[in-house]
Amino acid sequence: MKAQVPLLVMLTAVILGSMPMVNTAAAAAAAASSRPHPLDPLSAAEITAVCAAVLASPLVPARPLHFHYVGLDEPDKPDVLAFAYGTAGSPSRRRPLLPRRALVIARAGGQSHELRVDVTDASRPSVLSHAVHRGAGFPPLTLEEQFAALALAPACAPFARSVRRRGLRMDDVVCSVLPAGWFGGAGARRVAKMQCFVAGATANYYARPIEGVTMVVDLDRMAIVGFRDREAYPVPKAEGTDYRAGKAGPPLPEPEPAPGVVVQPEGRGFHIDGHVVRWANWEFHLGFDMRAGAVISLASVHDADAGTRRRVLYRGFVSEYYRTFLDAGETNLGLWAYPLQPGGDCPDNAAYLDGYNADQDGNPVKAGKMMCVFERYAGDVAWRHTESGLPDELIAEVRPDVSLVVRMVVSAGNYDYILDWEFKRSGSIKFVVSLTGLVEVKATSYTHADEITSDAHGTLVSENTLAIYHDHYVMYHLDLDIDGTNNSFVKNVITAKRNTGNPATGGADTPRRSYWTVRREVAETEADGQMDVGTGPADLAFVNPGKKTRLGNEVGYRLIPAGATAASVLADDDFPQRRASYTKKQVWVTPYNKSEKWAAGLYADQSTGEDGLAAWSRRNRGIRNEDIVLWYTLGLHHIPYQEDFPVMPTLSGGFELRPSNFFERNPVLRARPASRHGSSRNCSCT
Amino acid sequence: MKAQVPLLVMLTAVILGSMPMVNTAAAAAAAASSRPHPLDPLSAAEITAVCAAVLASPLVPARPLHFHYVGLDEPDKPDVLAFAYGTAGSPSRRRPLLPRRALVIARAGGQSHELRVDVTDASRPSVLSHAVHRGAGFPPLTLEEQFAALALAPACAPFARSVRRRGLRMDDVVCSVLPAGWFGGAGARRVAKMQCFVAGATANYYARPIEGVTMVVDLDRMAIVGFRDREAYPVPKAEGTDYRAGKAGPPLPEPEPAPGVVVQPEGRGFHIDGHVVRWANWEFHLGFDMRAGAVISLASVHDADAGTRRRVLYRGFVSEYYRTFLDAGETNLGLWAYPLQPGGDCPDNAAYLDGYNADQDGNPVKAGKMMCVFERYAGDVAWRHTESGLPDELIAEVRPDVSLVVRMVVSAGNYDYILDWEFKRSGSIKFVVSLTGLVEVKATSYTHADEITSDAHGTLVSENTLAIYHDHYVMYHLDLDIDGTNNSFVKNVITAKRNTGNPATGGADTPRRSYWTVRREVAETEADGQMDVGTGPADLAFVNPGKKTRLGNEVGYRLIPAGATAASVLADDDFPQRRASYTKKQVWVTPYNKSEKWAAGLYADQSTGEDGLAAWSRRNRGIRNEDIVLWYTLGLHHIPYQEDFPVMPTLSGGFELRPSNFFERNPVLRARPASRHGSSRNCSCT
Repeated sequence: MKAQVPLLVMLTAVILGSMPMVNTAAAAAAAASSRPHPLDPLSAAEITAVCAAVLASPLVPARPLHFHYVGLDEPDKPDVLAFAYGTAGSPSRRRPLLPRRALVIARAGGQSHELRVDVTDASRPSVLSHAVHRGAGFPPLTLEEQFAALALAPACAPFARSVRRRGLRMDDVVCSVLPAGWFGGAGARRVAKMQCFVAGATANYYARPIEGVTMVVDLDRMAIVGFRDREAYPVPKAEGTDYRAGKAGPPLPEPEPAPGVVVQPEGRGFHIDGHVVRWANWEFHLGFDMRAGAVISLASVHDADAGTRRRVLYRGFVSEYYRTFLDAGETNLGLWAYPLQPGGDCPDNAAYLDGYNADQDGNPVKAGKMMCVFERYAGDVAWRHTESGLPDELIAEVRPDVSLVVRMVVSAGNYDYILDWEFKRSGSIKFVVSLTGLVEVKATSYTHADEITSDAHGTLVSENTLAIYHDHYVMYHLDLDIDGTNNSFVKNVITAKRNTGNPATGGADTPRRSYWTVRREVAETEADGQMDVGTGPADLAFVNPGKKTRLGNEVGYRLIPAGATAASVLADDDFPQRRASYTKKQVWVTPYNKSEKWAAGLYADQSTGEDGLAAWSRRNRGIRNEDIVLWYTLGLHHIPYQEDFPVMPTLSGGFELRPSNFFERNPVLRARPASRHGSSRNCSCT
Repeated sequence: MKAQVPLLVMLTAVILGSMPMVNTAAAAAAAASSRPHPLDPLSAAEITAVCAAVLASPLVPARPLHFHYVGLDEPDKPDVLAFAYGTAGSPSRRRPLLPRRALVIARAGGQSHELRVDVTDASRPSVLSHAVHRGAGFPPLTLEEQFAALALAPACAPFARSVRRRGLRMDDVVCSVLPAGWFGGAGARRVAKMQCFVAGATANYYARPIEGVTMVVDLDRMAIVGFRDREAYPVPKAEGTDYRAGKAGPPLPEPEPAPGVVVQPEGRGFHIDGHVVRWANWEFHLGFDMRAGAVISLASVHDADAGTRRRVLYRGFVSEYYRTFLDAGETNLGLWAYPLQPGGDCPDNAAYLDGYNADQDGNPVKAGKMMCVFERYAGDVAWRHTESGLPDELIAEVRPDVSLVVRMVVSAGNYDYILDWEFKRSGSIKFVVSLTGLVEVKATSYTHADEITSDAHGTLVSENTLAIYHDHYVMYHLDLDIDGTNNSFVKNVITAKRNTGNPATGGADTPRRSYWTVRREVAETEADGQMDVGTGPADLAFVNPGKKTRLGNEVGYRLIPAGATAASVLADDDFPQRRASYTKKQVWVTPYNKSEKWAAGLYADQSTGEDGLAAWSRRNRGIRNEDIVLWYTLGLHHIPYQEDFPVMPTLSGGFELRPSNFFERNPVLRARPASRHGSSRNCSCT
């Protein structure tokens, strides 16, 4: 195995060395601290102060003490709302000073410690509380302990023998730490699995697993405690696995698509002030969390007809990823959000934002350019109509669509997830997940499908290479505050009716024999709020029962799935299913509770399912006319195909939150038409 | 009512007068007739010749004779394939001369006449066959007869009284012809309904129906044969209904999104040669049909790894629209495809193509700029991976995505449908329908929802204005020829399995209690091929059973729905359902039959359901290893909302056809990275 340079050092070197600091909002915020926002992520200085306070505190004397999670412990929701929107009789200009606090999850002395630290004054941080976790599960793995575990492999004698037995060179071997999961039993040690691969001639070591060999690492003792070499499968060849430019083969033959550049002759249309983004009728706070990645907060839309700003979303983020593993809870997504590549990940007109993670020792580590913001000109239409029915004239009205995209990419091991939040002037928010990266494979002796006589549990995507069937679930926590805090979840169920044809019996005097109407069901408790979107047609709406339009319709937003609606088919008693039981239904609704953030529980590594969304919801709390939270899961059953190898073309799915009687009428009705001179603008590139 | 200038005259004036002829392929084709293609739509000269031949023929002596449909009667599929791809031993360069033929559906003497006309030599057309339609239903309505029907309204005395009774001015009244539908009975006269509205201060007369008044027009006698004034409902006010720029109110307040222009510094990347479009690895023929609108034919993709061009789609088009009405069959979609607005409907870098319709008298009428083609730079990613697991390096590979979009817009009365066919370098074709335009409303006495005490069958979207619940169905005919003509339809059903844990009983030695695998079901007959995509997870694939990859996987494409998966909930015996019974299932598969094009039957106006997809499929023909056709319906249950008024923001849904073991590996693996200098290109606009 090659000498392992600590990745964090390299990351920092890469980030600082090669990426120009383009419109870095974090730097701007640090410089212009006149406008701190209570939801701003912890700054480098705050992270430093928080961790120093923990280390200085007598509450956790054991050493070493490693930081597994450091994140903003945001102020209570009513205080944040008062800050952002003012309170009755108190204009929002007079913003109360809200405390800055952090939540720390650390490991020390073989225990998981939760500490809350006040860092309102970063020069005088103080530990507010401390508790030891007594339940099941462990905090997310740190990068350093994964590196340290990997470093054990070459020194593990049985492993060295296995490597030699297969005719491989240890220098070519790369290992990867995988969460162990939970399969019953209690009192688990904090272990992880290690799987190893062969790089050598290819960067795509995932395509060349050393199959049959597993190691178990005790992360607290940092020692290999289990080793197994089941069977010596062939190692798939390196040829054809690399994806790097210049290593994947000659470039595709001509013709290539023509290059295209989006030019904004008047500059950008959005403004980022600290972490607050303003664009067209939207305003929101764009934050970052080590575990969730991007966090969208306090999203509101300006209603031009009403002349007021109206609330839509209090806080939204990806609560959990699940790919048999629980990626967010087990590994902290923010740590796997690598720098976005300008012109590739985001178009040329994008702006970039940084985030800060904490390393194991409590030092802040910049995750540079890990989010981008750009206006998208996809050539779509916002609305149109051609009217030919009027005499003497042909009317054609078209309004081109421009939207604002916030993007983050998480490269959690082999897979890459591109996460988009797209804001539209119509008031819609579209959420899209695009799956790409390297599909997970197992080495096999098969070189042709004809050799497969029993269920192989996957697709042969190359010689000796089986890509295994698996699922992807991306769960969103969306605290919708539709025009206010208290909402209800309404299912507008499309219901077929028979027409008797006889008004005396309630029918309509028409030859139609059937029709459909809407049966409105308001969810009373959490059980009502759990839904499989495939069980029958309905418009799923989140309404404000205290707000009505001038016509008396309840203001709301509805949820429209667009692909990726898979739900888990695993048995309820199967261990991964017990740990993420929410995957049986795409929609869950709970009453807001500040501590309920992580759908698979706070301690997701080796969790047993006793914490998390399903556990909280067993209380069957009321969700009617309450401050409610929508939990929505995008799901995909992945049968791999050869096109997915060695790296898969993006596969996208998502959903839309769309205004539904939120506005009195079409909010983009009065958008300006495209300039008649737009197409005559003389644009060119040198 | 204002003096009715024939719309066709105005259309021509508008088209010729104001639209620059930008890259008009039809003109180029006429000029460079050295490369005629057997699937090219009928030219103006050919339409003229065909109709003259019909009028000159003694076969249909009755007058007047009106042309309701004139379209290409394409050559038999084996001949077209031989032309396009050659035959074994016969290179495609030696293209056989294929005949040019037209299908004409005309009305004369109270009958519907089908004529086939040879126009291989446009100077010597000849009628090949003639038949009188004996079954139910009528051909699509012509524009002229709709205009003529509308002209009858002001002279209809009872109608004039109804207008006066409501205090309206006949000058402000605009009427619209609606197909009558069928509600049982036999031997229908060829009638249509007429509904009238008030324009006056607004262009949006659809928002101001004269509710309670219906007229029935006998189109053959061109006389009003039925009149009913049920009840004098209030006419909704004009205020707030207009959508025209400058009439809808002041422009939205700042800030607007920034303008953006897509600049292609090296020009366009696609080429249109006659009607053949070539872009990146795609090649296809883009035609036009009076009834279907755009027709994509002979779509093939170049496989760079194999060094050959491979077939995907023989012919694809929208076979039917259904919005309670059967828009394509009843009214000819091509007639409602109005000129696209540059910079609005299509971006600045688009090219435009014309089509030709035939008017009632057999004259060709140009539908200018009714299709556009453009490269889309939406800022999306084709594939990516960031690799952090290798020591000493952080690898980041990203390939930005560029796709080719073919777009058509159909404004069939009040609604506008934007239809996109998006070709991706990955080999996928994405189909998207975006719904916009004016939602259909009924006048009502309600001015507030609180007044509604019984089912109103719709949403109150403005005072006195109910937008009625309805469905939209867009049915695609897709003759897939995956790597060859004979294909099979395979359902890869995701099947949950229990793990016994005991290899002796077929289980796996793992603590997992369940897993899912794939049960492969090959559809044998048409009944097997009918599917509701909501009935359980499955990958739906169209494979070539005679072609396998090097690894032995069957080459194929799969269908991935992305929203708009509604299926009809109407009763099977309800009349609209009988006429379009295919709407109960999104997927149908039939064996190819040249005459089976129109899912609701050839004579869709007042059809009874005895022709069309469901009728053909009752024969339950074999579809395994046959030349098969996929019929896929996008469906939407539309509960209207106030945002839909007066014109709705686009609502999109679609599906993807995605290569699935078609390629040996990712076909865009070897795409060039974005130029490192891309973002430093100096682009500006004056």
